[in-house]
Amino acid sequence: MMTLSLIGIGCGDPGQLTRAAIDAINAADLVLIPRKGSAKSDLADLRRTICADVLTNAKTRIAEFDLPVREAGEADYRKGVDDWHDAVAATWSQTIADHLGGEGKVALLIWGDPSLYDSSLRIARRLNPLPDIEVVPGITSIQALCAAHALPLNDIGEPFLVTTGRRLREGGWPVGVDTVVVMLDGGTAFQSLDPEGLHIWWGAYLGMADQIIMSGALAEVGARIVASRQAARERHGWIMDSYILKRRP
Amino acid sequence: MMTLSLIGIGCGDPGQLTRAAIDAINAADLVLIPRKGSAKSDLADLRRTICADVLTNAKTRIAEFDLPVREAGEADYRKGVDDWHDAVAATWSQTIADHLGGEGKVALLIWGDPSLYDSSLRIARRLNPLPDIEVVPGITSIQALCAAHALPLNDIGEPFLVTTGRRLREGGWPVGVDTVVVMLDGGTAFQSLDPEGLHIWWGAYLGMADQIIMSGALAEVGARIVASRQAARERHGWIMDSYILKRRP
Repeated sequence: MMTLSLIGIGCGDPGQLTRAAIDAINAADLVLIPRKGSAKSDLADLRRTICADVLTNAKTRIAEFDLPVREAGEADYRKGVDDWHDAVAATWSQTIADHLGGEGKVALLIWGDPSLYDSSLRIARRLNPLPDIEVVPGITSIQALCAAHALPLNDIGEPFLVTTGRRLREGGWPVGVDTVVVMLDGGTAFQSLDPEGLHIWWGAYLGMADQIIMSGALAEVGARIVASRQAARERHGWIMDSYILKRRP
Repeated sequence: MMTLSLIGIGCGDPGQLTRAAIDAINAADLVLIPRKGSAKSDLADLRRTICADVLTNAKTRIAEFDLPVREAGEADYRKGVDDWHDAVAATWSQTIADHLGGEGKVALLIWGDPSLYDSSLRIARRLNPLPDIEVVPGITSIQALCAAHALPLNDIGEPFLVTTGRRLREGGWPVGVDTVVVMLDGGTAFQSLDPEGLHIWWGAYLGMADQIIMSGALAEVGARIVASRQAARERHGWIMDSYILKRRP
């Protein structure tokens, strides 16, 4: 039998690794590390560093593989994602077959938590034969963002929505909530909102050495966040950021 | 100066402790452990076990204190919470003064993550003088629930709402989302919904030895979850559970 462990490793700070994650890495026969060409945003270095740091099992092997590129030309977003998941599953299967054969324990180190805006669980279900799937939760960028700002995410007894930059841009402020977490924002979708009465808590490279955080009334700090984000993106060649918006009566 | 570390310890499984949490516990001069009379739900045993397990700093002291009881009679919910936070802050201050004086590093071990449905950050801001506040994120029951079910929380590119049992019972299915996480449900608020087309992923005592999980079409498993929850609550004398609902087109 084959077991696939999807191991949340937190969002950049090796201190966010849990004891269960460290145990699961050491229980693996094979750790797969995906590469996206020479892109720093693939976090391959982070994964290599974590393995070097926590692996004490001499039998655990590490295999790097090139992640298939998603077809940018596909007009149907869902179909584009679907095809890409198939391609990634095929690459996982091939890499596992090359290094391990049909039995053993394979680990993938998942940035953040495998359950939050990550496709590995969906891709894993496309493997044939289907492995046993094991999930080890990890600290997410939402948690790192709240921790960095010492911010309670929810108000007392109140709900919050977690959504994407695209949704916020297209749909405006969501109905029925005063707290919104925005993930996967390739731009700065908060600019599409009327800033009146809104506060923002923003962070980039959360948990990493380059972490930047800013917060304040959106009307006051929005433009400064846009400028900081642009400058940081140019300096590093990539950026990963998220933010929380709260509406104050 | 005084530093107060709010350290997320995960939701029951000591394997969920992060390396940063372990370091923060060992960096403390004083660890405060709250007790609620003889209630098992205070998780004082879990906190004692974690301290015994990870503390290597011989200088770190542990102080237990009795948590003030929240006035059940207060008609105004907000005011009841507000008064209770004041009372807890006074108890923290007194316990710190008794054991440490005016300087040093105090740690509180927070079930889950200090930013999610936890009042410690709000209580900490009532301390006088105000300490430096440091937050160490921890694995939440939402993450443990998803991991136990190997469930991706969000659908691809889609939002999700995190809310309370009371909100769900009073407001029905929230507008604009197909995925809802329900926390702090003292009962089984999902029973107030039309189960048609809804799926549930439920879990109690997540991450603990007594963990129970159930999932399926709400119309099929809803009643079984209600019965299991009732039986488990009687057996253990307390229960802590949460669940995810998804609406499938």
